[in-house]
Amino acid sequence: MAEPGTVYLVGAGPGAPDLITLRGARLLAAAEIVFHDALVHPGTLELATRAEKILVGKRCGRHSTAQRFINKRLVDAARAHRIVVRLKGGDPMLFGRAHEEISALRVAGITCEVVPGVTSALAASADLGISLTQRGVSRSVVFVTPRVGDGEARRNDWAAAVAAVDTAVIYMGAHEADKVASVLLDRGLAPGLPVVAVESASLPESSYTALTLAELPRIAETRRVGPVVLLLGDVYAAALAACLPLPLAAALGT
Amino acid sequence: MAEPGTVYLVGAGPGAPDLITLRGARLLAAAEIVFHDALVHPGTLELATRAEKILVGKRCGRHSTAQRFINKRLVDAARAHRIVVRLKGGDPMLFGRAHEEISALRVAGITCEVVPGVTSALAASADLGISLTQRGVSRSVVFVTPRVGDGEARRNDWAAAVAAVDTAVIYMGAHEADKVASVLLDRGLAPGLPVVAVESASLPESSYTALTLAELPRIAETRRVGPVVLLLGDVYAAALAACLPLPLAAALGT
Repeated sequence: MAEPGTVYLVGAGPGAPDLITLRGARLLAAAEIVFHDALVHPGTLELATRAEKILVGKRCGRHSTAQRFINKRLVDAARAHRIVVRLKGGDPMLFGRAHEEISALRVAGITCEVVPGVTSALAASADLGISLTQRGVSRSVVFVTPRVGDGEARRNDWAAAVAAVDTAVIYMGAHEADKVASVLLDRGLAPGLPVVAVESASLPESSYTALTLAELPRIAETRRVGPVVLLLGDVYAAALAACLPLPLAAALGT
Repeated sequence: MAEPGTVYLVGAGPGAPDLITLRGARLLAAAEIVFHDALVHPGTLELATRAEKILVGKRCGRHSTAQRFINKRLVDAARAHRIVVRLKGGDPMLFGRAHEEISALRVAGITCEVVPGVTSALAASADLGISLTQRGVSRSVVFVTPRVGDGEARRNDWAAAVAAVDTAVIYMGAHEADKVASVLLDRGLAPGLPVVAVESASLPESSYTALTLAELPRIAETRRVGPVVLLLGDVYAAALAACLPLPLAAALGT
């Protein structure tokens, strides 16, 4: 029996197909089979010119069962192919559930390499032109999610983490913006704390809304189609002062 | 007089030349002039085939003066060239001092775009094969630096931020590892907390050392040539259990 192939966990980046790394693009071009999340851009998948492409990611729902199934498919694919790519939105090591796939591959004796990617908070910051860190204003940045997986102990005190830093990025929180706001206000964060919600960071349809923490529940009223990151902190004070909800492109004058 | 050009603040990524984005590589190839930090890899600079290349970054030292000088050079370059690239290690928006350059360019009426990059914490995680977030173990990740710039108010309570999260990444902290350890121990963090110091993430010479928080001052004894990120948290317990200081490649079996 032939040696098993290698599984590459590749970060697709935040959305725009040209924000994947050179290494990620090269591996996609060489891959025989690609397992990808629902959020990966079609233009990114087109880089995998010779590969069979299989959609496995779920945006919500019954994660545990799905994850075990994905793990098994990766192991099976490595036994049949030389170059297997597992393509994940953003970076695999930040809210990418890479841990479970790496563990399953190691147990099965399959070689696994991780190719990092641009996480969406960095792309959102680039879109806005506002740095997460600023001398004298912000020297600490936290990345959290309020989402708790099924079967996961509720030791996730994300609000304490947000309260302790200068700038916070909340992933997968926009769908429960009212809960996010009330938990943070209960923690003692200022009602006037600037928040920017960036949707579809890096894509042409990217947009943002700047508001205060007390106003955050309002974003539930806006129609959303793409993923949203919430950015919180004093570095966004100017964005809040400058704008009502605006298309990003207009705000940037492009 | 001709319209001024555009300044692109481009993240070079963590070190390996093929971990820049496709967009960053394309802009380097098109650039007429490139201003780069000292830490940018020579192989990355080679992507700028037709550009004049100017080293402006300083790793330490008199930042304020240097920064004003860099700002002025960027403005001057945009008045003489169509495509100006300011190439920064990692991502521009995370400890990249992009804020000061963006502000100076806006004041001068120069168009500025930011191209995000892979920050070194993500590359270090990829090298180790250990995810920053793990279900049931870590759902919050903070990026901090203990470094305080000259003229900067000491409101940077990085230790409080580290104490509030599941996983912490400390940038620019290895040169004062003894101070980092003592401040965190004073904060009440456990002496046995696992720490991994990753040097030169993503490069062939990448190496790591796993130790406890109490042992952290010891890394001052190891010779360092590349930049180091410190990773702290329970997700590194297995790395600590598995190894004494080891070359990364040997530990990964590659």
